[in-house]
Amino acid sequence: MLKFNEAQQIKDIEGALALRPQVEKIIDEVWEKGFDNIFYLGIGGTYASALQAETYIKGKSNLPVSVQHAAEYYTTGNQRLTKESLVILSSVTGTTQEVVEALKGIKKVGATLVGFIDKADSPLAEQCDYVISYPNPGTEQIKFFMTADRLMHKNGEFTDYDTYYAELEAHLPKGLVEAEKQADAFGLEFAEKHRHDPMHYFIAAGNQWGACYSYAMCYWEEQSWLPSKSITAPEFLHGTLEIVEETTAVTLFLGEDEQRPLAERVKNLLPRICANYTLIDTKDYAVPGISEKYRGRILSFLLMHAVTQRIDAHVEQLNCHPLDIRRYYRQFDY
Amino acid sequence: MLKFNEAQQIKDIEGALALRPQVEKIIDEVWEKGFDNIFYLGIGGTYASALQAETYIKGKSNLPVSVQHAAEYYTTGNQRLTKESLVILSSVTGTTQEVVEALKGIKKVGATLVGFIDKADSPLAEQCDYVISYPNPGTEQIKFFMTADRLMHKNGEFTDYDTYYAELEAHLPKGLVEAEKQADAFGLEFAEKHRHDPMHYFIAAGNQWGACYSYAMCYWEEQSWLPSKSITAPEFLHGTLEIVEETTAVTLFLGEDEQRPLAERVKNLLPRICANYTLIDTKDYAVPGISEKYRGRILSFLLMHAVTQRIDAHVEQLNCHPLDIRRYYRQFDY
Repeated sequence: MLKFNEAQQIKDIEGALALRPQVEKIIDEVWEKGFDNIFYLGIGGTYASALQAETYIKGKSNLPVSVQHAAEYYTTGNQRLTKESLVILSSVTGTTQEVVEALKGIKKVGATLVGFIDKADSPLAEQCDYVISYPNPGTEQIKFFMTADRLMHKNGEFTDYDTYYAELEAHLPKGLVEAEKQADAFGLEFAEKHRHDPMHYFIAAGNQWGACYSYAMCYWEEQSWLPSKSITAPEFLHGTLEIVEETTAVTLFLGEDEQRPLAERVKNLLPRICANYTLIDTKDYAVPGISEKYRGRILSFLLMHAVTQRIDAHVEQLNCHPLDIRRYYRQFDY
Repeated sequence: MLKFNEAQQIKDIEGALALRPQVEKIIDEVWEKGFDNIFYLGIGGTYASALQAETYIKGKSNLPVSVQHAAEYYTTGNQRLTKESLVILSSVTGTTQEVVEALKGIKKVGATLVGFIDKADSPLAEQCDYVISYPNPGTEQIKFFMTADRLMHKNGEFTDYDTYYAELEAHLPKGLVEAEKQADAFGLEFAEKHRHDPMHYFIAAGNQWGACYSYAMCYWEEQSWLPSKSITAPEFLHGTLEIVEETTAVTLFLGEDEQRPLAERVKNLLPRICANYTLIDTKDYAVPGISEKYRGRILSFLLMHAVTQRIDAHVEQLNCHPLDIRRYYRQFDY
């Protein structure tokens, strides 16, 4: 299978889950100190992951959590972010310009910084109070969600936390690679059909939304140089729907959290107005060993990523376009 | 001038500003009672206005304000929204399906509801604890911002509140119609050039962002049936930039609040990668009588709206497409 190293991918996910004792130690320490607000800080892809974490926590917890965009912080500020606040961030390189800039301000304020910084020896890692370095791409959401889960557990809102993680540790790594295998034929077919789309619309709701936003922007636009637009399912029904016609390319992500009904409304509408739509429903991907009630937490959108990863692998090959080249980003100053 | 009734537009803005004593009475009463959190509730266009209000307040105030999306509320809920919370909303028809649904839940929780519901005799108006009805389109943001300003004033964060509103009342209505006149030739030229764009990108930052999001979705997509995509200035630099080429149609909104530098970064980049971009800078529109220091609050994005309104008027005529028809929205159930 193209661009697929089963053993390595299993090792990556196992390794991410194995960070949990470190996460717990940090969160438990922060919990003892106390905090006023929790912020997931990000920009681009990390902003998207932050959105997912926020949506995940909001309905399940009364913790005061929100997303803080890095560039908005160093321009507009946020008076709710104080020296008593907890700020959680993630970075692959540890050098993201806007996050470096935001951290200068946050350090002055004196908030507690917990960073998943893949490169331990980097400007961002130096600024954080707590750093976890685990340089395996695609595990950022697992890290953010482990943090969220520990916080909710400490807050008495996740009593079966241990059972949940026992299931993830036993079945998630294998489950995700099996999903990739199952999705490969679909990925090729989708890539063949859509790799020259003049525009492709991606729609999602709930904790799939951040993933969808990131998929359209960080994968299609940034990596594949393909025009795409993402829109949430409920917002799609308040404007974007009007430009959909028979030939408009639309893909709907169907997840398994509380907002699935919002995606289902779009699923009901699409066949009536469009003949070029695709549904990707994570319910089609069984993962033995993980309880039904847990699927909406993190499994569902990791399954979606497993599926879209197959699309990307084939688009890269068919379009003769290496995913790691950039036209402009970090190529010159602006 | 096409679709321009100067006297009426002046009257509309004057009328919106004249609602202030009602807003003050309500907010002062709510303030006395106290509250834990403030939510601007919305979907589609009202969600966009809510985003603007949140960005506006965040940097200037320590008030616990956030946006609550209506459809996310009735699916995911929000444990931070309690019986002590203040919820502010707006609706033209008073029947928006998702907001009606959200309010059922919020009523059960028992939060205080302040509604700008244009149709006084409507399902949404009936649910609100306080209702202000002023059926003039295009004044929603003034209402949201008046609420925000009063809250910040009560919180001791807007000491020159009276001076500010004296200036707005004396000079805003006239200032906006003069800006429309100034922008009309540009609006025609822009409409002629871009009315058949296969895709148009709109970029903005700060409190222009909600307006930009709404312009792309509620005006281009929903009203003109033209494909468009909006993206914030800092996020544009983290992905979307890679699909820009010589002929890509891009419009950058430059506002006058704290996030102007984020839009300016994009302004610096565009000429190097694109030959089909437009800058709309509200600094080009003088409004005598309104102090420089106040321009970034509400004036700047109302000026942007005055400019884009000229584009829409010409697109409607040139494209032979009435802006008030809908293909799908409210045409059938889904």
